[in-house]
Amino acid sequence: MVDVTAAEGMEMPLEAALRHGWGVVLANKKPLTVPLPRYRQLMVAAGRRLRYEATVGAGLPVIATLQTLLDTGDQVQRVEGCLSGTLGYLSHCLQEEMAFSAAVREARARGYTEPDPRQDLSGLDVARKALILARTLGLELELGDVQVEALFPAEMAALSVEEFMASLERLDGEYKQRMAAARGRGCLLRYVAEVEEGRCRVGWREVGRGELMAVLRGPDNIVCFHTARYSAHPLVLIGPGAGPEVTAAGVLGDILALAQHRRPRAGCPSGLGCVVSFCIGRSIP
Amino acid sequence: MVDVTAAEGMEMPLEAALRHGWGVVLANKKPLTVPLPRYRQLMVAAGRRLRYEATVGAGLPVIATLQTLLDTGDQVQRVEGCLSGTLGYLSHCLQEEMAFSAAVREARARGYTEPDPRQDLSGLDVARKALILARTLGLELELGDVQVEALFPAEMAALSVEEFMASLERLDGEYKQRMAAARGRGCLLRYVAEVEEGRCRVGWREVGRGELMAVLRGPDNIVCFHTARYSAHPLVLIGPGAGPEVTAAGVLGDILALAQHRRPRAGCPSGLGCVVSFCIGRSIP
Repeated sequence: MVDVTAAEGMEMPLEAALRHGWGVVLANKKPLTVPLPRYRQLMVAAGRRLRYEATVGAGLPVIATLQTLLDTGDQVQRVEGCLSGTLGYLSHCLQEEMAFSAAVREARARGYTEPDPRQDLSGLDVARKALILARTLGLELELGDVQVEALFPAEMAALSVEEFMASLERLDGEYKQRMAAARGRGCLLRYVAEVEEGRCRVGWREVGRGELMAVLRGPDNIVCFHTARYSAHPLVLIGPGAGPEVTAAGVLGDILALAQHRRPRAGCPSGLGCVVSFCIGRSIP
Repeated sequence: MVDVTAAEGMEMPLEAALRHGWGVVLANKKPLTVPLPRYRQLMVAAGRRLRYEATVGAGLPVIATLQTLLDTGDQVQRVEGCLSGTLGYLSHCLQEEMAFSAAVREARARGYTEPDPRQDLSGLDVARKALILARTLGLELELGDVQVEALFPAEMAALSVEEFMASLERLDGEYKQRMAAARGRGCLLRYVAEVEEGRCRVGWREVGRGELMAVLRGPDNIVCFHTARYSAHPLVLIGPGAGPEVTAAGVLGDILALAQHRRPRAGCPSGLGCVVSFCIGRSIP
């Protein structure tokens, strides 16, 4: 069963499928960011038949790489990265001295944000990805445990989309100041997710111009694994981490990986040893 | 069967093992860079039971990523990268305006090169890695088809190691000039492997300071996959690509991946469904 929705509540049918011996592939982040008791139930049913490469970095082999590090006995000390193409694009605009309000309008006009850009600017989507990485590492964290820095103040959450878009200018001064302060220290601003020492944090960070995160271009994602084996120099993945084609590639890779572990049953129509059943919702995350 | 030698002629016992239904894992590049008729025989016997992650980039998931791109139907247009930690270290020294002779002596003293540094400086080791990538892509190339730029002129190949080390100074002027010329164009020199349009090339290339290859630090490797899906921005892997720990991790990851595809036989002593048999030679490549 393949869940490419962005729907809540899918953990119930997915768990039922797993209990019937099906394989499950997720692009949907929500079943993996439910409260811990529910999450544990899903994982008990899953064994190695639940894959979710496309939930973090789309087609980039983020989960596969993390899983191999864990399987081969490495000790993962820190995972950090820029996990949002949308916020990467905004960072790039700010770096080019565009005003924050203009940058958000441009990103929305290009279709890089949801119709209500606060869904991206809240940091919640990145927090979900960070939580998925943390839970894969075995950390028993809730979504509420992730420290999230939103790109707008809490009082703007209650506005209508039109009001929100119309009041963006009031944030321009603050972002201009932050960018200038970072620049004064030879740094750039990046919206970074960090999983370290049992904690999970998502927000702006100043990064030195020589760092890999500073070289990131446009909507690229980056993930850095700092481990016992990759200590002085991390293992790093870079590339586009959103978009329908690379997300579909991540999903298809998982389907093929699951199919390789199965013996075809007599009379199986797909030849994969399984019938693939898709859950398709309004949007591909 | 796990081949962590650097020996020639291993393709014979490896093929026999494959024909008996064994899985085979290679850190040894040589069985994959034999003449094509021999290589094809090995591949026919192999099916999906031959893995060789550690042959390129050690523990970096280079082969796994390339294989997933191919399996999911992407079109790989170009693969390029810096595949030698030793030559990466030399590039770094040259960039810091160290003389070529001093850089080679320093690399040798630190154990980054073989006792005869020409084994690294010939470019042949990088050429083997490029050929493994090219053949994985389905290109029918011989090792002799790879265009290789050595770091020293042909007449220095006949010298004894001592004579070679003593005569390194004669190359200092040329490297100083090349570095200065590159710097004048806002570039750095990197020793790059390229697989593109059915051809394979290994040698120095000038890269712009903003490019990812320019940001590479010390002995890090980088591999960039330019594909139909990853076109404007490639999929990039960065990290240490040599050393016993990360090479062992690459080998172990392959062993586990093969074991996951097997059903344990009754009475199997390892519990992996297989007995692991190692071929250990003089050096881990």
